[in-house]
Amino acid sequence: MPEAGLDVARTSAGSSRSVLPRFVFPIRVYYEDTDAGGIVYHANYLKFAERARTEMLRAVGIDQSDMRDRQGLGFVVRRCTVEYLAPARLDDALEVRCDLRAVRGAAIELTQEVGKAGDAGPLVTLDLVVALVDAEGRPRRLPPEIRDRLAGTAGTST
Amino acid sequence: MPEAGLDVARTSAGSSRSVLPRFVFPIRVYYEDTDAGGIVYHANYLKFAERARTEMLRAVGIDQSDMRDRQGLGFVVRRCTVEYLAPARLDDALEVRCDLRAVRGAAIELTQEVGKAGDAGPLVTLDLVVALVDAEGRPRRLPPEIRDRLAGTAGTST
Amino acid sequence: MPEAGLDVARTSAGSSRSVLPRFVFPIRVYYEDTDAGGIVYHANYLKFAERARTEMLRAVGIDQSDMRDRQGLGFVVRRCTVEYLAPARLDDALEVRCDLRAVRGAAIELTQEVGKAGDAGPLVTLDLVVALVDAEGRPRRLPPEIRDRLAGTAGTST
Amino acid sequence: MPEAGLDVARTSAGSSRSVLPRFVFPIRVYYEDTDAGGIVYHANYLKFAERARTEMLRAVGIDQSDMRDRQGLGFVVRRCTVEYLAPARLDDALEVRCDLRAVRGAAIELTQEVGKAGDAGPLVTLDLVVALVDAEGRPRRLPPEIRDRLAGTAGTST
Repeated sequence: MPEAGLDVARTSAGSSRSVLPRFVFPIRVYYEDTDAGGIVYHANYLKFAERARTEMLRAVGIDQSDMRDRQGLGFVVRRCTVEYLAPARLDDALEVRCDLRAVRGAAIELTQEVGKAGDAGPLVTLDLVVALVDAEGRPRRLPPEIRDRLAGTAGTST
Repeated sequence: MPEAGLDVARTSAGSSRSVLPRFVFPIRVYYEDTDAGGIVYHANYLKFAERARTEMLRAVGIDQSDMRDRQGLGFVVRRCTVEYLAPARLDDALEVRCDLRAVRGAAIELTQEVGKAGDAGPLVTLDLVVALVDAEGRPRRLPPEIRDRLAGTAGTST
Repeated sequence: MPEAGLDVARTSAGSSRSVLPRFVFPIRVYYEDTDAGGIVYHANYLKFAERARTEMLRAVGIDQSDMRDRQGLGFVVRRCTVEYLAPARLDDALEVRCDLRAVRGAAIELTQEVGKAGDAGPLVTLDLVVALVDAEGRPRRLPPEIRDRLAGTAGTST
Repeated sequence: MPEAGLDVARTSAGSSRSVLPRFVFPIRVYYEDTDAGGIVYHANYLKFAERARTEMLRAVGIDQSDMRDRQGLGFVVRRCTVEYLAPARLDDALEVRCDLRAVRGAAIELTQEVGKAGDAGPLVTLDLVVALVDAEGRPRRLPPEIRDRLAGTAGTST
């Protein structure tokens, strides 16, 4: 990847830089999520992943509707690769595990996986590039405050 | 109903007023529309009905994204009663039949039904009140041009 | 309504019969729930309501995927009236309040409302008839065990 | 890619083998497809792509609900990479362009793109691996009849 970035989740063990820990978000499967094949409809894992990203951001103090209303900024998915390993079904108690992989100049990169709650293996994995854009959809650099929150260093004196 | 209205579709046989004919819109059922019960998920009939209303409006020259961009006006569902008589299934070729029942001061009333294409009986019926609102969600009276288009009299000299 | 029913939620104060208390279920609004009008898309309140009904049933020990797998039975919405009073928006913390109004021979009747968490007024109200059907979609009487659970008397000696 | 496959769309100019031509399917954007950002919600392009794949298969005589009912077979997305280049908006007249890239032993590979109708450039591109599975979700080899239909050679004497 040509652009220089901050690999927050891949920092070496000796690094003193803060790193966002894995964020885990529970999802219950309802009828709305399933299809006539009896399994979760493939596009709906992208919804699950977005709910979890939203809560991960909220957990570090980033409120997307506030960003949109006050700064005209929003995160949009730029690229997404999804692997479907095994299906989830009605009433399954799932969890979305979110690992922030890198903070770039105008985007973040994440790996997310959806699995059964408490179980080790993923059913679905997602690799995403999520970009920051303004109200006209133009790419924008991440403001320092958002970078700090994503690096887990917000509110700390360095 | 207290408010005076223009019962466009129930005008007596002797009336000379134009009336919108029944509008019919085809819908194919895809996996995204179904659920683990093997049938179309109940909430999705509201989507089908809205697609058909949109095309009914477009057919008489009312473009909703244009209304929103230029006048800040939009139609919103105010009230909806849905009866589910029989299920639709994957790959069914359906049609939505739309009957504009009344044009009120700030709202329209429709009956819609979803049935198999070419078949007489409905699977689902919907009775709706759809109101016009401004960008802040406040009720707004229908502009004369829209009333005329809904009455089927737009572009005619009276 | 012709059929005799058990008005569990409207029992008089002097009644000794158990009654399901109001069930409240939290919902967060995500991008997937909203539309280009900036508000929650009208059909999605039916999804919210169904999530809450599912959890209400689960809370009294009724597991719908278990019912389907072991008995071939499922609940389907037969009739639904929705009133849209005011819109919900992105990131709103909502709650769905569920009141079981009556348990009929082959159906239950509920009133549900969606409002902001902790706030008194509803944004959307729903009145529903939810019927029990077998795998072929034919109406089926509620089994005694399910009736007892819905009446809040399961597991009690009378 | 280790498995031998039939590169139907990449056959050399000198090849005499039939090839499925590009399949184009129109999609209109409705409110249900959009989100509060004013654009089509990112997960919904997967729905658009699946509608188009379904119609591409139907156009060559492959009926998925028939396959499921009679043979217990279904196509499932195994892997999907989506690039979001520019947003689509309410009321846009889009088209999904489907190019079958390869027919493997138990899967097909496609490239799809979503663009404005009649316009050259894609807004969104999708690369997919779609596998055939039985009712228990186990991979199954494509039956000869389906292979022939996908190769565009069904019903021809070679």
